[in-house]
Amino acid sequence: MTELEQYLHKIAGIAESTLDELLPKEDTYPASIHNLMRYSIFAGGKRIRPALVAASFEACGSAFPSENVLKVGAAIEMLHTFSLIHDDLPCMDDDDFRRGRPTAHKAFNEALAVLGGDALCIYAYEILANVGSIAVISEISRALGTNGMIGGQVVDIESEGKAVDKATVEYIHMNKTAALIRACIRCGALLANADSVTTEKLTNYGNLIGLAFQVVDDILDETATTEQLGKDAGSDRENGKATWVSVCGMDESRRYAVELIDKAKTEISFLGENGRMLAAIADFFFERVN
Amino acid sequence: MTELEQYLHKIAGIAESTLDELLPKEDTYPASIHNLMRYSIFAGGKRIRPALVAASFEACGSAFPSENVLKVGAAIEMLHTFSLIHDDLPCMDDDDFRRGRPTAHKAFNEALAVLGGDALCIYAYEILANVGSIAVISEISRALGTNGMIGGQVVDIESEGKAVDKATVEYIHMNKTAALIRACIRCGALLANADSVTTEKLTNYGNLIGLAFQVVDDILDETATTEQLGKDAGSDRENGKATWVSVCGMDESRRYAVELIDKAKTEISFLGENGRMLAAIADFFFERVN
Repeated sequence: MTELEQYLHKIAGIAESTLDELLPKEDTYPASIHNLMRYSIFAGGKRIRPALVAASFEACGSAFPSENVLKVGAAIEMLHTFSLIHDDLPCMDDDDFRRGRPTAHKAFNEALAVLGGDALCIYAYEILANVGSIAVISEISRALGTNGMIGGQVVDIESEGKAVDKATVEYIHMNKTAALIRACIRCGALLANADSVTTEKLTNYGNLIGLAFQVVDDILDETATTEQLGKDAGSDRENGKATWVSVCGMDESRRYAVELIDKAKTEISFLGENGRMLAAIADFFFERVN
Repeated sequence: MTELEQYLHKIAGIAESTLDELLPKEDTYPASIHNLMRYSIFAGGKRIRPALVAASFEACGSAFPSENVLKVGAAIEMLHTFSLIHDDLPCMDDDDFRRGRPTAHKAFNEALAVLGGDALCIYAYEILANVGSIAVISEISRALGTNGMIGGQVVDIESEGKAVDKATVEYIHMNKTAALIRACIRCGALLANADSVTTEKLTNYGNLIGLAFQVVDDILDETATTEQLGKDAGSDRENGKATWVSVCGMDESRRYAVELIDKAKTEISFLGENGRMLAAIADFFFERVN
């Protein structure tokens, strides 16, 4: 295993046990919703977002692990899962599978999927209140709202089947995907009390790898198999989704992803050795495609 | 107008303008979701929850208006509206009308109603972060989660068409309705820095009027007209909902509502003149039925 693989493995393990400790047990009344929440959270995700919070925190010179870093990472993972559950609903992307298993509304039912998503969102905020940083709560809320993730989802859905321009695709990606990834990076910096210059450069890094993550996702939707993805390959094209590949073509999308990753690494080069895990994560975001 | 009517009228007016100031304008990109959020928020609600926050704050001896009290009231109104939008969805209660107008998913579409509810929830937390009280954020999150409002909604839906006992109906009402009403009262006390004895008695008051509110709602569903309710009368019975009336009958439900209101007023009698608006609100909760 590379150093990054070891790091991601370690963080994923800690994130799993933190989530397990924080979430209500399956048999807590009412059991159905707690089952759905756990089913959706423990679906074999790579826990990239908790890793981003931790790596950013450490890049700012703070020693991992800190309990608050773990809790914020877990809360963001809940918020990410909340968005996936609602995204998969019949009235939204209408996906039957995610990570190789039936989506929440398929495994349970639609009403419980709506409420389970809602509950993961609320529960995340309860944990963030427990951490006690108003700045973190404010950061995450802005990243999720209509000027962030939800805004991106709205434009994504409304662009389906339409000829959209590059600026619209960039808006969707910057908000639907990059906003929460940037928030992970910024929360790590906030928890480490980073200075404003460091925070600004890390913010740029977060936006760049966030965009790269989505460009790579668009490429994989065209090139990977359903088995590799854990969801239907080619579904973006079938659904008439606005993607980089649909707007710029495959070659230009690859070139753009490389450019974004290079720029991201340049932004954090001033961190030197402290930033090596963030640089490795940037490379990892692109390597998925090769 | 009685003193209470004047008070509710005043608070409703301030709540409307606070919500108007806080919510993104209709033409803010992406416009569709901001339209839906405003359509759902400005639907002619009585703003009872902001009034409860304000009346509790004042009952603790603090002078109204305080900007933070207004913001917390507005945030709770957004959270209440988020729950109504999701409650009305086809996969949940499948309601076409609320307050005499088409529900959000009817006036817009289902995907936007899911996301608009989500956005109101997230936006409420952004406002609460701006207020800056971790205790308030924690209080509201616990009231909304699976050990509160959402837990009550789950059991409500899962009890449809089943013969349920009184304890189950009480669980549904305590969580689905009373939890957020109690949180309004407790947030007012928190913002006023009330002592623990005062807070405990106000908490009891909040639970009691919250339960009474739902018992009265169940009675009205049987006795009021569709026009009076702004939604389909008798829909609880048609949907096989677990209600006080279905479990205990109409006479016992009325007697129970009177008992709850009396107990609520006894809890706050120690406040003397400071508590007169809370006492009037308790009476008002019951008077709707006469």
